[in-house]
Amino acid sequence: MTDRKEFRDLADPDDARDAIASLDLAPEPEAVPLAEARGRVLAERIDAGLDVPGFDRASMDGYAVRARDTFGADETDPASLDLVGTVHAGEEPDVEVSEGRAVEISTGAVMPPGADSVVMVERTEESEDGDSVLVRAAVAPGDNVMLAGADVAAGESALGPGTRLTAREIGLLSALGVDSVPVRGTPTVGIVSTGDELVRPGEAVDSAAGQIYDVNSYTIAAAVEEAGGEPKLYPHAGDDYDEMEEILRSAADECDLVLSSGSTSASAVDVIYRVIEERGELLLHGVAVKPGKPMLVGRVGDSAYVGLPGYPVSALTIFRTFVAPAIRRAAGVPEPATATVEARMATEERYGEGRMRMMPVGLTETGEAQSASNASSAERDSASGDLLAYVVDKGSGATTSLVEADGVVEVPADTAYVAEGETVEVQLFSPDVRPPTVLGVGEDDPALARLLDTLERPRYLSVGSREGLRRLRDGVPDFAVTSADDRGVDATELGAYSREWGLVVPAGNPEEIAGLADLVDRDLRFVNRGSDSGLRTNLGNAFAALADERGTTRHDLVESIDGFELAAKAHESPARKVAAGRADAGLGLRATAEKLGLGFVPVGTETVRVLANPDRAEKSGVRELDAALGERLDAVLADLPGFDR
Amino acid sequence: MTDRKEFRDLADPDDARDAIASLDLAPEPEAVPLAEARGRVLAERIDAGLDVPGFDRASMDGYAVRARDTFGADETDPASLDLVGTVHAGEEPDVEVSEGRAVEISTGAVMPPGADSVVMVERTEESEDGDSVLVRAAVAPGDNVMLAGADVAAGESALGPGTRLTAREIGLLSALGVDSVPVRGTPTVGIVSTGDELVRPGEAVDSAAGQIYDVNSYTIAAAVEEAGGEPKLYPHAGDDYDEMEEILRSAADECDLVLSSGSTSASAVDVIYRVIEERGELLLHGVAVKPGKPMLVGRVGDSAYVGLPGYPVSALTIFRTFVAPAIRRAAGVPEPATATVEARMATEERYGEGRMRMMPVGLTETGEAQSASNASSAERDSASGDLLAYVVDKGSGATTSLVEADGVVEVPADTAYVAEGETVEVQLFSPDVRPPTVLGVGEDDPALARLLDTLERPRYLSVGSREGLRRLRDGVPDFAVTSADDRGVDATELGAYSREWGLVVPAGNPEEIAGLADLVDRDLRFVNRGSDSGLRTNLGNAFAALADERGTTRHDLVESIDGFELAAKAHESPARKVAAGRADAGLGLRATAEKLGLGFVPVGTETVRVLANPDRAEKSGVRELDAALGERLDAVLADLPGFDR
Repeated sequence: MTDRKEFRDLADPDDARDAIASLDLAPEPEAVPLAEARGRVLAERIDAGLDVPGFDRASMDGYAVRARDTFGADETDPASLDLVGTVHAGEEPDVEVSEGRAVEISTGAVMPPGADSVVMVERTEESEDGDSVLVRAAVAPGDNVMLAGADVAAGESALGPGTRLTAREIGLLSALGVDSVPVRGTPTVGIVSTGDELVRPGEAVDSAAGQIYDVNSYTIAAAVEEAGGEPKLYPHAGDDYDEMEEILRSAADECDLVLSSGSTSASAVDVIYRVIEERGELLLHGVAVKPGKPMLVGRVGDSAYVGLPGYPVSALTIFRTFVAPAIRRAAGVPEPATATVEARMATEERYGEGRMRMMPVGLTETGEAQSASNASSAERDSASGDLLAYVVDKGSGATTSLVEADGVVEVPADTAYVAEGETVEVQLFSPDVRPPTVLGVGEDDPALARLLDTLERPRYLSVGSREGLRRLRDGVPDFAVTSADDRGVDATELGAYSREWGLVVPAGNPEEIAGLADLVDRDLRFVNRGSDSGLRTNLGNAFAALADERGTTRHDLVESIDGFELAAKAHESPARKVAAGRADAGLGLRATAEKLGLGFVPVGTETVRVLANPDRAEKSGVRELDAALGERLDAVLADLPGFDR
Repeated sequence: MTDRKEFRDLADPDDARDAIASLDLAPEPEAVPLAEARGRVLAERIDAGLDVPGFDRASMDGYAVRARDTFGADETDPASLDLVGTVHAGEEPDVEVSEGRAVEISTGAVMPPGADSVVMVERTEESEDGDSVLVRAAVAPGDNVMLAGADVAAGESALGPGTRLTAREIGLLSALGVDSVPVRGTPTVGIVSTGDELVRPGEAVDSAAGQIYDVNSYTIAAAVEEAGGEPKLYPHAGDDYDEMEEILRSAADECDLVLSSGSTSASAVDVIYRVIEERGELLLHGVAVKPGKPMLVGRVGDSAYVGLPGYPVSALTIFRTFVAPAIRRAAGVPEPATATVEARMATEERYGEGRMRMMPVGLTETGEAQSASNASSAERDSASGDLLAYVVDKGSGATTSLVEADGVVEVPADTAYVAEGETVEVQLFSPDVRPPTVLGVGEDDPALARLLDTLERPRYLSVGSREGLRRLRDGVPDFAVTSADDRGVDATELGAYSREWGLVVPAGNPEEIAGLADLVDRDLRFVNRGSDSGLRTNLGNAFAALADERGTTRHDLVESIDGFELAAKAHESPARKVAAGRADAGLGLRATAEKLGLGFVPVGTETVRVLANPDRAEKSGVRELDAALGERLDAVLADLPGFDR
């Protein structure tokens, strides 16, 4: 294995930021049509090239007059003026207003020569023959007229450089007739994924050959867009030097910034390292940050280059922390206010390493500040409750950390611990990330999953019944779902139902398995669930009863079962192994067996309970779950074989 | 004029919201490629179709072994294992691990059959001949291995319906190989502008014929995008029934929602009204809201229809308040948290009308809460100071209200007044609208405009010196710029410079104008500035001196000047009238005359002072202005003829 340099001399994270800031990513300004200018940033000041309005303009429907002809007029003593014509909006007046005369005029029309004011139609009465009009109110010169240039005068500064164009600025540019808008260029960001094992989503993946889907290319492409850049994906590069050099070189030609990411393989990193050293300039290799140590910063040709770590959470974290600010600066777009939130730490987190840690955390609202906002969660996007942050530590290789965590907390090097209750700033993975409205933990259950589908933005972590109850006791989640013994847990039951469990077997039950005894007595391949699963606990209890019957111990009984310790993660996993022919029987639910078209040998029925954190009963997400259990549970259970009240 | 119905029976604003909510705008779900899925909303739950990882995967570079072969191994007593092969990432293993054997393995590679754990490379030493490896640490089964499905198990619920897709969800979908993503449809919104006088930006506008640029089409199109819809612009419709019917009918065929807007002309509204009544269904005409009274709600064919008022600020306000929420609901996108902010009213605002008012307000930070945030304004987008809201009331016809106001405050009908200091919720015109970092008012001056161009997000209102000083006294703006007498104003001077003023005349001065006396003595057409302008005050003073010389009064002197009362708005306006041949002389600056290639007759030099609100001296925007005056004023003045320290 190559002795890589990054382990020797890690750069300070601030030096890495400086190195990236020293790279010039900003493209040339460009001109875009007005219809495509939204969200862009003005490259220069826009001065008004014309007066708005461009003419003296009637701002009411009525009659254009000389004000002095109305002096003294009122309801009892109206002035009578000769009606000499009409001007509509969009017409050039073909009539003048001289003493004693009036012209009918529409809102927005050009004031006819000689007139200096408009009497609004409500204060007038036209004669039946249309030859004259009675004016029942006096007007002053300028009344109900917007003078040319009164809104914007030609030569006035209309919008400054650096202005981000939203609907309203688009409106002002329209009024000025500006169709070609000078804006800052959008930085083009090339994304090169490395690793022979990567397959693009949509193509077939060969797991036996160690192929996996390319996660980083699309994740980083989306994050580039969120930061105001334009992503450009390049073909996967393997570990071949010439191929990699060719791809990096063309990406550098076409882009302002090139990012590589993808493989964690050392050889791919080594190849990139060589290309950068030979064809560009390496500013920095290795940063004292966890995760993200192997970051590379440099140049390839005229383009900036940053090498991101291979694991998706690490890559997104490093992108968000180090690269996105540089893209935003180049695009002239500030970081959105929603990109960070403040939260309190739910539990103490010990650390104490010599490098900065980007700690992934999930967020949940306590609901304590909920009453301050009366907006419904469906209509309003703001975090209305006090936020709790809990550490999500599944290892940086887990893709699911992307959606189980909401962002990262920067923990400085040599911090001994982050205290429970301490306020931390959470850098969200994206400005559009919003904390869940309700956080549940516990047993993996299909009825619950369907019920949660009817809620707005729930989060559910299938950690098993036991771990779920433990977390509920620690006070982080809003609710736990358990099919195990929950005595001694201080919680409010929101609902309960039963599910039928047993052995999922191949369709038609070819081995003619009759029950648990067959697993003990015959040579069958079995797949169990994890020990945190309530289902597994109930299976254990059933074997204990069988052991009692037979006058032996449960331990001796299960030891003889091939696969009893083979713990599959999700409730469908054992059944899927059976379906794939890799097992003769799996622990599972009748509903799963029927869904996958498999056979089922019933063993028992267990109760699933939904238990709320008693401190969160009034949180709106919990109330919505409670309502869903009340209103929709029956419909959900009716649709799932073996489920009942 | 037509007797229009909306004035008789105005609907309650809540009924208008209900009417719009009753229209179905939601399009059918669709499938989009993963690369285009960012920002979209899942139409259905996504379950994992495969295990992630799809195979037992090494999570470290090292050696795949049977854990039991390492039991007891440590630094002093390493275990020696036969090295029988290598597996790289993306390869199918061609070797098994049996007792006493090891296989070199890369991170991400498939575990070879027989191996149950990986010893990390740092704890090993390969023999020189490469035939064996010394293992210096014991591992347990499963160490440094991620089992198939450990990240996501096939059949697990991965993402729920209604999930908005940000970078991280794109990452999880990539890992699952999902390339075609089922998402909610984007509501298509047709925009029909009405009015014979409208011209699209980019085309020539004939002001004499009363033509104006179409502001609403592009403004509303941008606002539709901001709300998550897809705008579609239709050709302008005049006031002709058949043409309007044809356009509305094709828009209704192609769109989920049709909006009309543009003209304020009564006849255009009447034509639309007839088309809706004859070809669709009118639910509501006229709403008790100011502005926005003439709103129409109904259906054309199968499409929803809302008619917006004609003035741009009114149209955007009504769109934002009534229509955008319906588009967001149809798209499944919540209102961003940044769409509203809280502010304190800067001054009392009396109201007391019988209908709800959407009051346009500008925002400025007091800077009082500034110290709570240490983020630089260039990097962070959040409103770090306490916000003040001041009413912007230029009349709803003013396009500039779009950029001088930041949003609207909903004032319920029959509210007598909104008190100074009262906390109000400001509905920003767009979620991306950000309050200015610094707010200035006063004299229109080209040196100041250039200086402000170097600041981040300033706002400057050219209200003239006198009005600027009045507002500074009232405490709303951060600074005022004056060329008039500022005695008695409590303020901190940030900087000062002088500018040369006089008469701008045609190039070559064909009338041989020598000074102010010529305006009095000869028959020349003159253009003045507005009475709030410091320049006009100084011109008045110069005429007073001339009157003294001649033993007459200033009043008598200026009365004889053709155009002395003709007050042009901006500092370039009189010069532009001269350039257009519509005047022989205009009040202005040497810099303006030279910029426009005109002649100049000097009269005097006046001092321009930049005065800060003493309560805001520590506000970061004020400090940045102060720094800009210190560092960049000389360069700006050097570039402007007639400007000096």
